[in-house]
Amino acid sequence: MDRIPILKMGDFLLVTIQVDLYDQLAETLESDLVNMVKKYNSRGVLIDISAVSIIDSFMGRILGNISTMSKIMDAETVVVGMQPAVAITLVELGLPLKGIHCALNVERGMELLRSKIGFDNQEETDDDDSDLE
Amino acid sequence: MDRIPILKMGDFLLVTIQVDLYDQLAETLESDLVNMVKKYNSRGVLIDISAVSIIDSFMGRILGNISTMSKIMDAETVVVGMQPAVAITLVELGLPLKGIHCALNVERGMELLRSKIGFDNQEETDDDDSDLE
Repeated sequence: MDRIPILKMGDFLLVTIQVDLYDQLAETLESDLVNMVKKYNSRGVLIDISAVSIIDSFMGRILGNISTMSKIMDAETVVVGMQPAVAITLVELGLPLKGIHCALNVERGMELLRSKIGFDNQEETDDDDSDLE
Repeated sequence: MDRIPILKMGDFLLVTIQVDLYDQLAETLESDLVNMVKKYNSRGVLIDISAVSIIDSFMGRILGNISTMSKIMDAETVVVGMQPAVAITLVELGLPLKGIHCALNVERGMELLRSKIGFDNQEETDDDDSDLE
């Protein structure tokens, strides 16, 4: 496994993380993602972590990096499918994934992305608040 | 890794295969898929194999099983994202994935599924021809 596949779905990109991220794999994913955002002129990135049972600080940092990079490239990032146990552990460990938008599943994530893109088009304000849902 | 995540996207289900399938994992995937087809009343299943670099006869059989099971449950299956090298090897090995519909990527796969569903609604013929594209 040398890279995580990225699927193009209309204006959005979808990544399903099923394996443990190590340094090289995470780096490849980050560069692949920003390249694809540029190539396909994507407006949003969906990261599905429903198969991830442990999120540590490394994984949290990678998600934050991807979100920030995409934002710089004018694309929003939404993390979807987090398992309830993972959410509990994250908060108990004091890792509330600040700055990362979350949604329950892919469909709700797409809705959130669409609303964000619409909002940006109307007001063009660059607010940094995190709305962890 | 005890199960492969299945994402619901409207009327379709999306599965991204990123790891080697072994017996137990394949069996779980098959049962999860048919259960989700029933639960969400899905009309189509997309299987993304862009991260798969080797397809052997076992993997071919699993794909065939999923396709047949889904068909029985009134859902079409399309395999998307096959790497060119995999297609070459499959044909050279005499494993042409008969009975499995293929498309270049997720978007084309969705188009194919939509056309198939439309076709089924009009004619309700249950033809078994394989159109490996």
